[in-house]
Amino acid sequence: MSSCGVLVVAGTHGNEVNAPWLLQQWQACPDLIDAAGLSVQRVIGNPEALYRRCRYVDRDLNRCFLPDQLEREASGLEFQRAGELLRLHGANGEHPCAVALDLHSTTAAMGNSLVVYGRRPADLALAALVQGALGLPIYLHEADLQQTGFLVESWPCGLVIEVGPVPQGVLNARVVEQTRLGLETCLTVLGQARRGSARLPDALVVHRHLGSRDLPKSDKGEPQALVHPELQGRDWQGIAPGQAMFRAADGSDRSEVLVEGEIPVFVNEAAYTEKSIAFSLTRREVWPVEATWLPALQQLLSAV
Amino acid sequence: MSSCGVLVVAGTHGNEVNAPWLLQQWQACPDLIDAAGLSVQRVIGNPEALYRRCRYVDRDLNRCFLPDQLEREASGLEFQRAGELLRLHGANGEHPCAVALDLHSTTAAMGNSLVVYGRRPADLALAALVQGALGLPIYLHEADLQQTGFLVESWPCGLVIEVGPVPQGVLNARVVEQTRLGLETCLTVLGQARRGSARLPDALVVHRHLGSRDLPKSDKGEPQALVHPELQGRDWQGIAPGQAMFRAADGSDRSEVLVEGEIPVFVNEAAYTEKSIAFSLTRREVWPVEATWLPALQQLLSAV
Repeated sequence: MSSCGVLVVAGTHGNEVNAPWLLQQWQACPDLIDAAGLSVQRVIGNPEALYRRCRYVDRDLNRCFLPDQLEREASGLEFQRAGELLRLHGANGEHPCAVALDLHSTTAAMGNSLVVYGRRPADLALAALVQGALGLPIYLHEADLQQTGFLVESWPCGLVIEVGPVPQGVLNARVVEQTRLGLETCLTVLGQARRGSARLPDALVVHRHLGSRDLPKSDKGEPQALVHPELQGRDWQGIAPGQAMFRAADGSDRSEVLVEGEIPVFVNEAAYTEKSIAFSLTRREVWPVEATWLPALQQLLSAV
Repeated sequence: MSSCGVLVVAGTHGNEVNAPWLLQQWQACPDLIDAAGLSVQRVIGNPEALYRRCRYVDRDLNRCFLPDQLEREASGLEFQRAGELLRLHGANGEHPCAVALDLHSTTAAMGNSLVVYGRRPADLALAALVQGALGLPIYLHEADLQQTGFLVESWPCGLVIEVGPVPQGVLNARVVEQTRLGLETCLTVLGQARRGSARLPDALVVHRHLGSRDLPKSDKGEPQALVHPELQGRDWQGIAPGQAMFRAADGSDRSEVLVEGEIPVFVNEAAYTEKSIAFSLTRREVWPVEATWLPALQQLLSAV
């Protein structure tokens, strides 16, 4: 059987509570989000972690979608759950889905934004259609061997809707509304693509991942300085080259400075402390939309 | 032996990480904060919870300072720790302290603020002196039988410095600097009070606790609506009477409205979800400073 649904995942991280609440409200009130005639499957990514209000139990579920590990049925709650989600909702699963929309929140001031992993034509088509409708910024994550195994990469098409800032564990009406809007727009443009009425913009603006920076640390691994106040809360913003990245407790700036054209994202995301990431750096690029993108998405949706 | 020190506590809640980092930096660099000639004892309130980056292990340490429970040596890590802190640093402890300054952070937009518990003259003197120096708002918490056992109540004089918004587990340079400034100002005015050079302002402005409100919940205890966007981030602010408190997922406002003169604080503090508190309500009051306050503080400090 070919893929025929859209998977909507909330609570891939159990302390990101807004999207799970949105899906619960949507279930109680089907008019809350227009599914645009698509067959939508709603799922809580990591129910055990959500119950415990922690990001994960054994390891980050959104780094567990690693084919080799899943093939050999690696142990741990999250590897098991990743395999289960694919068996249930993967492109060849029991209830097959061609597209995965993974709803996240962040403590960083990312606003309402999209994350795309790599350059699959169908992903770029979907991202371009949403950007054309809402103008959301797009973080293009690629070529980072330290960060792999993202959920949406295991579906033929998929992206992350990332909304912030909001503390972990906090329900926030604005964040819920931004998530609702982002999700509904994804479904709207997917419905248009399926019906052949989608129109791509001329260009796609991406913020391409360059790398990540950690806080300066002592020999014992303790932070010696923190994210500079001029960077804090200024995700996506062009910041003057030469701006210091870090500030010490005595108010002095450290010597590490921003390079011209480098734009920070995920500034001070709480969960990235353990990944030794204080923020990531990107470069803004304007890409012409390619003729292959929309047909790639439409082909996936033909059976939806 | 009489009390003769000032106790500075950070990490009473283990996921409030900014004050512990500040104390660590202060230890490494003694010039970071001027102790004003006082004998200061620095301590991490709940080291095990800080290590685990969680608020507490068994229960909230800042609700464990209950004389009856401590008397009978109630079980659990936090009751044990409360007893230990009093044995070590209490007014009659091994290293006696007359004043406790307890450094907290919050996900609510409280700015740099003080919390005072009840109306002890020495507490009010200290709060008035800090307010006179920095203008910080003061939340006067009293007459709430649901919330008791706060740390500072177990010392002859004490207050909480509460800084936010900052997500749990996130180091933020601005929050560290606000905490540093609040703490240093407390020490400065305590030093002045001890030397007899402190000058109280004419009046003390407090926001007196009236009560707390929870989100509207279903029979199963699930939130049916969230804190209204017009309240979110507007701690301490006068909000028009009749403003709805809560908003549902479909964008509709609930019927519960603010009463004239009620000012919200601790709006959407992450840790209060489990306490069924969405926000607290206060009334702004201007109190004349009483002649008894400063001598009460000075008497405590005479042996410092």
